[in-house]
Amino acid sequence: MSAETLVALLHGPDQPGLVAKTAGWIFTRGGNILHADQHRDLEEGVFFQRIEWEPSASSSAHAEVDAFQEFAGVLGMQSSVAATTKRTRVALFVSKADHCFHDLVLRWRANEFPCEIVAVVSNHETLEPVARGYGLPFYHVPVTAATKADAEARQMALLRELDVELVVLARYMQVLSAEMLTAFGRPVINIHHSFLPAFAGGKPYHQAYQRGVKLIGATAHYATRMLDEGPIIQQDVARVTHRHSVDDLVRRGRDLEKTVLAQAVRWHLEHRVLVYGNKTVVFD
Amino acid sequence: MSAETLVALLHGPDQPGLVAKTAGWIFTRGGNILHADQHRDLEEGVFFQRIEWEPSASSSAHAEVDAFQEFAGVLGMQSSVAATTKRTRVALFVSKADHCFHDLVLRWRANEFPCEIVAVVSNHETLEPVARGYGLPFYHVPVTAATKADAEARQMALLRELDVELVVLARYMQVLSAEMLTAFGRPVINIHHSFLPAFAGGKPYHQAYQRGVKLIGATAHYATRMLDEGPIIQQDVARVTHRHSVDDLVRRGRDLEKTVLAQAVRWHLEHRVLVYGNKTVVFD
Amino acid sequence: MSAETLVALLHGPDQPGLVAKTAGWIFTRGGNILHADQHRDLEEGVFFQRIEWEPSASSSAHAEVDAFQEFAGVLGMQSSVAATTKRTRVALFVSKADHCFHDLVLRWRANEFPCEIVAVVSNHETLEPVARGYGLPFYHVPVTAATKADAEARQMALLRELDVELVVLARYMQVLSAEMLTAFGRPVINIHHSFLPAFAGGKPYHQAYQRGVKLIGATAHYATRMLDEGPIIQQDVARVTHRHSVDDLVRRGRDLEKTVLAQAVRWHLEHRVLVYGNKTVVFD
Amino acid sequence: MSAETLVALLHGPDQPGLVAKTAGWIFTRGGNILHADQHRDLEEGVFFQRIEWEPSASSSAHAEVDAFQEFAGVLGMQSSVAATTKRTRVALFVSKADHCFHDLVLRWRANEFPCEIVAVVSNHETLEPVARGYGLPFYHVPVTAATKADAEARQMALLRELDVELVVLARYMQVLSAEMLTAFGRPVINIHHSFLPAFAGGKPYHQAYQRGVKLIGATAHYATRMLDEGPIIQQDVARVTHRHSVDDLVRRGRDLEKTVLAQAVRWHLEHRVLVYGNKTVVFD
Repeated sequence: MSAETLVALLHGPDQPGLVAKTAGWIFTRGGNILHADQHRDLEEGVFFQRIEWEPSASSSAHAEVDAFQEFAGVLGMQSSVAATTKRTRVALFVSKADHCFHDLVLRWRANEFPCEIVAVVSNHETLEPVARGYGLPFYHVPVTAATKADAEARQMALLRELDVELVVLARYMQVLSAEMLTAFGRPVINIHHSFLPAFAGGKPYHQAYQRGVKLIGATAHYATRMLDEGPIIQQDVARVTHRHSVDDLVRRGRDLEKTVLAQAVRWHLEHRVLVYGNKTVVFD
Repeated sequence: MSAETLVALLHGPDQPGLVAKTAGWIFTRGGNILHADQHRDLEEGVFFQRIEWEPSASSSAHAEVDAFQEFAGVLGMQSSVAATTKRTRVALFVSKADHCFHDLVLRWRANEFPCEIVAVVSNHETLEPVARGYGLPFYHVPVTAATKADAEARQMALLRELDVELVVLARYMQVLSAEMLTAFGRPVINIHHSFLPAFAGGKPYHQAYQRGVKLIGATAHYATRMLDEGPIIQQDVARVTHRHSVDDLVRRGRDLEKTVLAQAVRWHLEHRVLVYGNKTVVFD
Repeated sequence: MSAETLVALLHGPDQPGLVAKTAGWIFTRGGNILHADQHRDLEEGVFFQRIEWEPSASSSAHAEVDAFQEFAGVLGMQSSVAATTKRTRVALFVSKADHCFHDLVLRWRANEFPCEIVAVVSNHETLEPVARGYGLPFYHVPVTAATKADAEARQMALLRELDVELVVLARYMQVLSAEMLTAFGRPVINIHHSFLPAFAGGKPYHQAYQRGVKLIGATAHYATRMLDEGPIIQQDVARVTHRHSVDDLVRRGRDLEKTVLAQAVRWHLEHRVLVYGNKTVVFD
Repeated sequence: MSAETLVALLHGPDQPGLVAKTAGWIFTRGGNILHADQHRDLEEGVFFQRIEWEPSASSSAHAEVDAFQEFAGVLGMQSSVAATTKRTRVALFVSKADHCFHDLVLRWRANEFPCEIVAVVSNHETLEPVARGYGLPFYHVPVTAATKADAEARQMALLRELDVELVVLARYMQVLSAEMLTAFGRPVINIHHSFLPAFAGGKPYHQAYQRGVKLIGATAHYATRMLDEGPIIQQDVARVTHRHSVDDLVRRGRDLEKTVLAQAVRWHLEHRVLVYGNKTVVFD
């Protein structure tokens, strides 16, 4: 049986002794550090750390989380602390394309993701049967230009009711409005089917074909108000040639989209991703 | 001793029987096809072919080249035919950075490139000693905003005098004007230090760092009037993380630039690259 | 509606004029070549070709196949010709691991594979529900050391009854005997979870971990009497570090196994793979 | 001006509080940790750490090194500590092939390697002019089966006289005897032109060609008594097809050999590689 561990992500103004102070705090309370990884942005003078530890058997995880956050605050650091036994509550947003959906669900069933998938939300009914086949609750929320505000209100109500902590846009073909992102206030991961910032916007495979690039890509990023410009979590590319039609790019791109999105989701769920400014620090 | 072979690159409106006709023409004249590779752009209805053959012992390469081009014209095809024993005359344009320069020259000395390097042209004197150390003629042509037209006139005179057939911009830090590209009228290969079309323009590694991408790239392309928008020959990427500073990106990028440019130059010299519209067909 | 096309794979002693002869034969009969790709093994003096064409509207595919094979025989070539509208009949052999199974079936449902999956055969009952969920016929054939000969006889009877043309061992944890491979006499594709020839045999991820390699791999190959030594169709690798436990290698390896096996199966089904000696020529 | 920093590599039996203790020791003495990275081998119960810090302005680097080593010893850890301003003294061993030689020297001149190249040692005179062209001392030590012991004695005398701290076998075509490795007693990095453990021994590209692999590789490892079986530092691969002859594999392999060896040497010189058992921990 694996003991409960805690993971803290912290960042703030760099200063001497931070590594010693966080490690010392944990050690003094009887905890045992399993992993500690830090990074300094020398230009910006910012310190980043991910630290995972087993608290002492006598302490409660809940109390430890609170105590650490108070301690980090004293150091002038922003922090988030999570117990690894707490499984993140995830909603998958999908449309008609099913490749990322199947891939995420099958990985989840293979225990690759420490999460609960509490809802599948779609603007189409296409994937309802497969979602139900996996035993997942499916919510059909149609979206049109005219009904978008209402639809987002329904989605938000659902996310609140289910206490969703992470939304994954698994080739969901609607843009979440800035209002909805703000209202949700929790992370939303999107997969864009190009190597951003190249080919932002619609129909990236068509754009790539027109430009004659020799590699196509996919990018997983946090959704922000600025479409396709949120902090990048993971990217990858695949080689293509003049022999590949747009359809071939679409097919090959599906494999990229699956693996890039899955990797980003795994890192997020394992508390490995720290956002600052418009960039990410990924402690892998 | 390897016999002389000819390579034809042709393209034009697709029609039934093209493969049979070109192969039949060569066979009938006693030639032996070594490689034949073709591609159809089904959308545009264009046929592309690279065909390499040994002409019959009794024919002259020169006569065979002329005869093939006439034959291709009858088929409605544009063609260029080259004898592989004819070594392309190349000028390398450099500034101060030397990594691509060393890489190209060392590969050339290792017999990776079927060409003659007939000139090293630079707007700085920095690389004169190493060029001379390699036994290469070095031409210093300073360029300022005020003197650019004159400098290009000197460069053009040199290219004409030396009958240069290919210019390679090996991290040459000046833009060749549209007038000069037109006046030269022969291929110019440039290496751009990003995964185009992302981060076109200046300081691409700084742009990449600012955007927080997880892969950096390099792109070899033919230079055209449209800066950074010419037909792409080759691209590659390397993984980077938040740990990499701009200087690290520059260092890692140097390796990409070297291999991407070398690959593009090799393909060009082996008559494997066919340009149409703003794209390339690479018969590798 | 896409017209029916034929694909021929041929190989035999090299001789002048082969490209012209095959292209000429098709053209003369009113066919239109869509793709033609050839290769010469200069050392062995062998010519290889894949040629795909639309026969003339007036000819029957069946007659054309026979005529081409006769023609190829006259040229001294071994050939196989297939109509692309004929979907290959495939049996998937599985055990308990389901990642390659799901991946292949989902790609098949996404129309990536021109085949019929006519049977799922397993030595365990584990995957019966998911196979049935996909609407696929499932056959449970238990195998023990004592019953292996009987089990293979049952498997062979099934393969014959269903006229199976390709067996895919999708992480099937039993070795097919030389007798069974001979009796079947048709291609069998296996996925081995290492970069062969490194780590042949059992527990390759454990072997890789012990050796401390920095890349792990997967290899799809045709199964032959010589275990793990059949002709390689496709291979790929992924980077690992000292941080990865054997379990991590297993997890990361699953992604490699899926994509490598899927690529090999696709190439096979598209008649792109030609075996000679213990190697493959892949016309991709 | 960059201040002097110290780097410690340590490993030993895992125990609670190690991260806190090393960080605390440095902090207490007025040092500032720049990087700290650790790893636990949970199976073996071993703790590994790389820690880089600026000592306080008032302390001498020499005294700090001694003090840290004493401290690590008390913790039961083996450690090595180096000042990053101390440039490692390197000898390059070469034969006739020059690609890795040029690559290493050019990177060194581009300030990619914090080292001094104090000798180029070769069993042939081929590279003497280029070594001298780079201003490097060249030592010709011929080796035959009959004279090997004498030759190694001469080499050892040279290494001792020059206080060489690292030998890099840059495609040196002789095996260093177990006796010489023991006598030298310091690290020796070799580049093997295959993806070890596949194709150990001689002529790996020929072996790869015969086996029909779809990827070729290169491996940088520490040389040990067991030929081609020392701890692996870095590996990489490149894709090949049936179109590639052995000569093509050799050419493509040269690029792999250069980048893999350069990466391994850089990591070693930056004190990022920790050997334990027959494996490496690379803190990159």
